Amino acid sequence: MRDFLPADVRRREYVIGIIKEVYERYGFEPLETPAVENIETLLGKYGEEGNQLIFKILKRGEHERTGEADLALRYDLTVPLARVVAEYGERLPKFFKRYQIQPVWRADRPARGRFREFYQCDVDAIGSRSIVVEAELCAAASEALKKLGFTNFTIRLNHRQVLAGVLDAAGIVTERHADALVALDKLDKIGPEGVAKEFSERGIKEESGARLLSFFEGLSALEHAAQLVDIEGEGRGSEKDAVNAAILGRLVEFVGDNEAGARGIDELRSVVKLSAAYGADMRIKIDPSLARGLSYYTGAIMEISVPDLAGSLGGGGRYDNLVGMFSGKDVPACGFSLGLERIIVVMTERGMFPENLSDAPADVMVTIWSEETISDSLALAGELRRKNLRVDLYPEADKLGKQFKYASARGIRFVAVIGEEERQNRQVALKNMSTGEQVTLTADAVVDAVRQHLK
Amino acid sequence: MRDFLPADVRRREYVIGIIKEVYERYGFEPLETPAVENIETLLGKYGEEGNQLIFKILKRGEHERTGEADLALRYDLTVPLARVVAEYGERLPKFFKRYQIQPVWRADRPARGRFREFYQCDVDAIGSRSIVVEAELCAAASEALKKLGFTNFTIRLNHRQVLAGVLDAAGIVTERHADALVALDKLDKIGPEGVAKEFSERGIKEESGARLLSFFEGLSALEHAAQLVDIEGEGRGSEKDAVNAAILGRLVEFVGDNEAGARGIDELRSVVKLSAAYGADMRIKIDPSLARGLSYYTGAIMEISVPDLAGSLGGGGRYDNLVGMFSGKDVPACGFSLGLERIIVVMTERGMFPENLSDAPADVMVTIWSEETISDSLALAGELRRKNLRVDLYPEADKLGKQFKYASARGIRFVAVIGEEERQNRQVALKNMSTGEQVTLTADAVVDAVRQHLK
Repeated sequence: MRDFLPADVRRREYVIGIIKEVYERYGFEPLETPAVENIETLLGKYGEEGNQLIFKILKRGEHERTGEADLALRYDLTVPLARVVAEYGERLPKFFKRYQIQPVWRADRPARGRFREFYQCDVDAIGSRSIVVEAELCAAASEALKKLGFTNFTIRLNHRQVLAGVLDAAGIVTERHADALVALDKLDKIGPEGVAKEFSERGIKEESGARLLSFFEGLSALEHAAQLVDIEGEGRGSEKDAVNAAILGRLVEFVGDNEAGARGIDELRSVVKLSAAYGADMRIKIDPSLARGLSYYTGAIMEISVPDLAGSLGGGGRYDNLVGMFSGKDVPACGFSLGLERIIVVMTERGMFPENLSDAPADVMVTIWSEETISDSLALAGELRRKNLRVDLYPEADKLGKQFKYASARGIRFVAVIGEEERQNRQVALKNMSTGEQVTLTADAVVDAVRQHLK
Repeated sequence: MRDFLPADVRRREYVIGIIKEVYERYGFEPLETPAVENIETLLGKYGEEGNQLIFKILKRGEHERTGEADLALRYDLTVPLARVVAEYGERLPKFFKRYQIQPVWRADRPARGRFREFYQCDVDAIGSRSIVVEAELCAAASEALKKLGFTNFTIRLNHRQVLAGVLDAAGIVTERHADALVALDKLDKIGPEGVAKEFSERGIKEESGARLLSFFEGLSALEHAAQLVDIEGEGRGSEKDAVNAAILGRLVEFVGDNEAGARGIDELRSVVKLSAAYGADMRIKIDPSLARGLSYYTGAIMEISVPDLAGSLGGGGRYDNLVGMFSGKDVPACGFSLGLERIIVVMTERGMFPENLSDAPADVMVTIWSEETISDSLALAGELRRKNLRVDLYPEADKLGKQFKYASARGIRFVAVIGEEERQNRQVALKNMSTGEQVTLTADAVVDAVRQHLK
């Protein structure tokens, strides 16, 4: 787990601020839940592996000795949302659109870019089955990334029912679906032979595996051809439209009369069509191999990726049954989660933060000339602060050279000095640390001089 | 532990935003530390009762069975700061001024206004023994409260060495100091006879107890007289100055030649004097009975209270030895903590939040006329959002009356409709839900019309 020193916090707040601003514009409202949930709320919601990764908190008092845990640290933001929806019921609007940007904790082995405490930026819409929700979520997440400066991301889009339809159509029995997806997920890494081998190890019939593989290889070929075209036509997106249409066509063919699958394909088509109204359709690439790990998804699923980064910047999907696990009522839901840590890593590596963010801790530093004039320095600091400048005050009477050096080391651009002469004339000597220039001014003029350099 | 629904979050963010803005203007920088610390970092820092109240987290894997805890939830923000200062050493500036606004957790029995998860707003200056630090902290906390709308608070100021000097001078042996303070703390509640009785129960010599009581009763009389004067002269503060001077005089007399005590009195005098440069001196009331619970304070201590509220809105003091417990080095420190939860409770009860805070989740809601026109509604929502309006979109084609009712229930002021006719004319019908007035406009004109009603 990490400490965030001031420069880190500023970067994080910059990113969070933009994401919040965009989500607010889309009509999402902020929600915050406690870091700690009852342990039963969390257990059994994230699969066996998830259970292992939940941080468990000892029950208070007596039970600290027995080792009994009754509380646990929040593992994601989706289950707490489901609990809130069940708990507050009618007090929430019929369509509850909330965003939530808070840390979650997982007792994982730490690795590069992977932490035991990390933030999630979730946005979810509860209460509607309309595909409008999926389109809104794709548009909101896209806009947040665009505002952060990402230009070349893709929203990969798939559908759980379509995925099931494809596997059914290939002849894979439902019990083997999960196995097939795990193997298929490695296609990029281990190639078709490797996947075929893993299929057979996982008890999938050779014939079914082959049919599935050839379907996905066909799609790859199609995309590859389109990419060649796309190099010339970048940004116009009409090729992307054509590819999406072609992929939808192949899916219709392959899935055939599988009813849920066909309905899923219609929904994918609708998401693309509605996203066009936001101009987000050009970002969308239908990717029938996208599976997403979590078991609770029931409809459309999506993931946002950038070309030169393994893994995704975020993902989400429809999960119409999770809230019902808490409320007993049938409550449709769809959500999207941006990975804050990953976004910050990529933005740092690519130098995507605005320059003035790693800024100085203050606009101006006021020095202390001598023990006798401390009150003058404090009064000046107070006056500049009242004019909304960020003012640091060297806390002690000290050699002036040392005070200048300190300001310089901290990257503070202006240093104010009230020496004997300035004091008598009710003036301030203001030194610009980057030019070395020093001028003598009234306090009001100091405010103006410093402000000129704050864009 | 509490969930914060959207209106709660908005109130909290309003308060936090103001506190941050003020602290930044005073040159403090943001720090964030993880919710979870190693258990050894926390144990033994908060006394025996504190140890009991620390939430302990089970060690991962095997140890979940043995009940062994290796991590714990943050109990306050001061100990993590001390750890950070020791851990990052030279990477931090010589004078590290940080603020930190994060939750802490205590396994307390929940009570009214007391929670197991609550936020602290801490501001600390590390690295200087100068009294300037105390003055800056008092000024910063005062300004934050003033900006939040508090007008009638008092900064009670005392000093640990003065307190010790007073107890010494009364003839109370050092081992009984803590007992004497516990009893003395109840003076308001149980009166001088009650305190005298408790003194004797706690093994304090009758003579010493009586001497101490008569000193504090003398101070009370002094203050009472001053309060009578103050009713007429409210706000001018000269009476406060006179009272502070009188109390300092009494302290000098009583403490006599106790060296540490006399130095402490000088420091109190300096804090008041330096605070005058900020205009914060009128807030300060020297209160020799102020003790503050935490054992780590070594110098000035302060607490902010408002007349009609038991307990305080915040408090702090100098703690020159705590950081050394982690770093082995002698690092002076002084800090102040505002109680966010208490501030919010008081502000809510007194109606101190700005009216537009409990605002609607969106500036305008776009309706969906029919399945066929969904894309038009999405496009309009997208356009209004690009113009920086906060726009909610009813997610489904539904009876228009129902959509209006929904917007109204959510307090959204404007509702936009694209019916058949508007669609043909590329216009929008905009209904003002508070006046009932409906006009037909272009999308651009909608932006202007809605903006006119945002202050």
